Amino acid sequence: MTTITGVSVHDVRFPTAAAGDGSDSINKGDYSATYVELATDGPHTGTGFTFTNGRGNEITCAAVRALAPAIEGRTLDELFGDPLTFLRSVTTDVQLRWIGPEKGALHMATGALVNAVWDLRAKEAGKPLWQLLAEMPTEELVAQVDFRHIRDAITPEEAAAILDKGRVGLEDRLAQLRSEGFPSYTTSVGWLGYPDDKVRALTRQAYAEGWRAMKMKVGGPIEDDVRRARIIREEIGPDALLMMDANQIWDVDEAIANMARLAESDPYWIEEPTHPDDVLGHARIQQAVSPVRVATGEVAANRVIFKQLLQAGAIRVMQIDACRVAGVPEVLAELLMAAKFGVPVCPHSGGVGLCELVQHLAIFDYLRVGTSLEGRMVEYVDHLHEHFTDPVRTRDGRYLVPEQPGYSSDLKPESIAEFRFPEGPAWQ
Amino acid sequence: MTTITGVSVHDVRFPTAAAGDGSDSINKGDYSATYVELATDGPHTGTGFTFTNGRGNEITCAAVRALAPAIEGRTLDELFGDPLTFLRSVTTDVQLRWIGPEKGALHMATGALVNAVWDLRAKEAGKPLWQLLAEMPTEELVAQVDFRHIRDAITPEEAAAILDKGRVGLEDRLAQLRSEGFPSYTTSVGWLGYPDDKVRALTRQAYAEGWRAMKMKVGGPIEDDVRRARIIREEIGPDALLMMDANQIWDVDEAIANMARLAESDPYWIEEPTHPDDVLGHARIQQAVSPVRVATGEVAANRVIFKQLLQAGAIRVMQIDACRVAGVPEVLAELLMAAKFGVPVCPHSGGVGLCELVQHLAIFDYLRVGTSLEGRMVEYVDHLHEHFTDPVRTRDGRYLVPEQPGYSSDLKPESIAEFRFPEGPAWQ
Repeated sequence: MTTITGVSVHDVRFPTAAAGDGSDSINKGDYSATYVELATDGPHTGTGFTFTNGRGNEITCAAVRALAPAIEGRTLDELFGDPLTFLRSVTTDVQLRWIGPEKGALHMATGALVNAVWDLRAKEAGKPLWQLLAEMPTEELVAQVDFRHIRDAITPEEAAAILDKGRVGLEDRLAQLRSEGFPSYTTSVGWLGYPDDKVRALTRQAYAEGWRAMKMKVGGPIEDDVRRARIIREEIGPDALLMMDANQIWDVDEAIANMARLAESDPYWIEEPTHPDDVLGHARIQQAVSPVRVATGEVAANRVIFKQLLQAGAIRVMQIDACRVAGVPEVLAELLMAAKFGVPVCPHSGGVGLCELVQHLAIFDYLRVGTSLEGRMVEYVDHLHEHFTDPVRTRDGRYLVPEQPGYSSDLKPESIAEFRFPEGPAWQ
Repeated sequence: MTTITGVSVHDVRFPTAAAGDGSDSINKGDYSATYVELATDGPHTGTGFTFTNGRGNEITCAAVRALAPAIEGRTLDELFGDPLTFLRSVTTDVQLRWIGPEKGALHMATGALVNAVWDLRAKEAGKPLWQLLAEMPTEELVAQVDFRHIRDAITPEEAAAILDKGRVGLEDRLAQLRSEGFPSYTTSVGWLGYPDDKVRALTRQAYAEGWRAMKMKVGGPIEDDVRRARIIREEIGPDALLMMDANQIWDVDEAIANMARLAESDPYWIEEPTHPDDVLGHARIQQAVSPVRVATGEVAANRVIFKQLLQAGAIRVMQIDACRVAGVPEVLAELLMAAKFGVPVCPHSGGVGLCELVQHLAIFDYLRVGTSLEGRMVEYVDHLHEHFTDPVRTRDGRYLVPEQPGYSSDLKPESIAEFRFPEGPAWQ
């Protein structure tokens, strides 16, 4: 019976902004982590984080400290013995929720904390998180989900039916993944900060490495976007997939007009075409740009936004994020809704450690929830993996199955020391 | 040419939770303010705040500190010479926005800071904020609004037409307000924390004081809600208005079912029937409970949520909040959209100082935007006004027009000292 004896949080920032990596139409970030460590009276330390973009990481750190009393001194048995009470203690605290509710800095901090608890549980079980989840009894999985406010889209009974059905063929799917890996795509070729010749060179290199799906950023001057799309399409030929990502910059009508221009390069999806809260706007865009898919979700605030995107037919690709929402249990709610509505999940990744996290979620989704690889790809960005003790491994454009216990969220102590903000040597 | 020489922020909390005031189905708060003071090289200090519910106020304070560099050292002429650049410098900073975007703790802090700048401007002009806005040229008002992401609902040209039309009869409306005051309703009778006999006594007292519109909290056990509604309806007779507020607790179908039960007490509106992000859910509820009005907005994250609530016909009463969104300019966008869609605005109030703020917005709305009092009421809660230097004044259930320069947001220095958290004497 392991007790969480203390919660510590580290403000860790990597100076990526200067390099133009991660630059898009609306963000220019120093990739950062609000990094949580759970001390215990047992052999393991639970870790979790939320990804931020630099400035403001101290705010999500403050939010973790505000939430920490909900789990300090609690045992894992207590927390998981009544998972809904545990979850609501950090999502709907009678005072804290006012500064959300279930959104923004507070909810991101909730994600970091909840994920750390799940990492601890997976480590105690001696299993990678995807395996812990995939082997969990249906009843226990359903008990993790807060159905309040999503019951009009999915009921506990429907969730149970999906998860029961997911048991069929699970071993075969796992064997397949272990042999072939999980499909992915790369976002490293087309950041807005890169000049044309760098885009062409990176595209050529990625294609040579085996990538057959690549994402470019759009949302600059439309002529530039059209030109860069042509460069990439020239390099990858007609069969490889080209995804586009506007990072929320466009108005609804602007998105429709610009996608009419970009259609010549045969985009597979348009990601974040407009404001992330605009369910009705995404629905209008999806209708207008079809057969191009609308994809969004990396900054979708919570399961209620995802619920509506699905109900409105506003997306044909659902992009979950591992740590913007309230961690594993809220992601589980999102995966279940996607399965019910028949929309493939392609997790958002990149940043700091998002690849490390979402591989577990994508694998669990395939094994037990969505049970298909059709239209499924995990984003891959080749940044900052060297700071993790259990970094992602890829081969020929596919993620290999992680096998170490936990959620692959442990940062190396020397990386924390080096990049701690503002006192770490990297920031002097 | 006044320069903002420094930004300071105070964590001010009032221990209201113990009294049961402000308790509802989901909140139990120590009413608090993230209180901002702008030091200048001139005679005035700008003040602004965002209201929070106790725990977490340190997080919004941290967010103010993160945003402060955007205005420190700037002159009012610079900020208002290019208002959209000023606004976006605090709503879409390339790093900070990630922990919103435009929502939650960061956006609330933005509201506090932006409101402080507007308070300073109004003080410099020697006018109450409502008057500064009501007299402003149409072109300058339109220039304050960020139309990005709402252009599909309202264009700058449509906004200008509304504001130009609002000039007609403005003097008459102002004379009327100065003579009669602005209609309001009281929320002090039916908090969930109050027993039945206290509800009856408070209702009787409020009716005797002249209130003809009162709000009760619902969202407890439905039998209790039905019984309490009957008590209030008995006391106020058939003609006075009874509003109900569920504070987001219900699922969509639960809201519809419960309102069918509560219909016997002839509610005027049902406020926050479900999750504040659920545009589609509110639309379904509005359709089902009509002719009862659906009202929401006090925790609507931003203008994009309001846009959709209006586009979807999901609300028949729009409840703006003065400081959850990015202050005066974002509220202006919301008022303009409400006018275009023909939905009356009834500002959210109560908390700490919300009455003081929203009276300016409601008066401006009547004078220049909505230009009607039909269906318009400002919430009134009789809490904590004694801590403000220019508190609201009411007579016979109506707000009197504030006449002092500024946004009525100055807390008394002795109140700040007494209730400062955690070091103030009130918290020892």
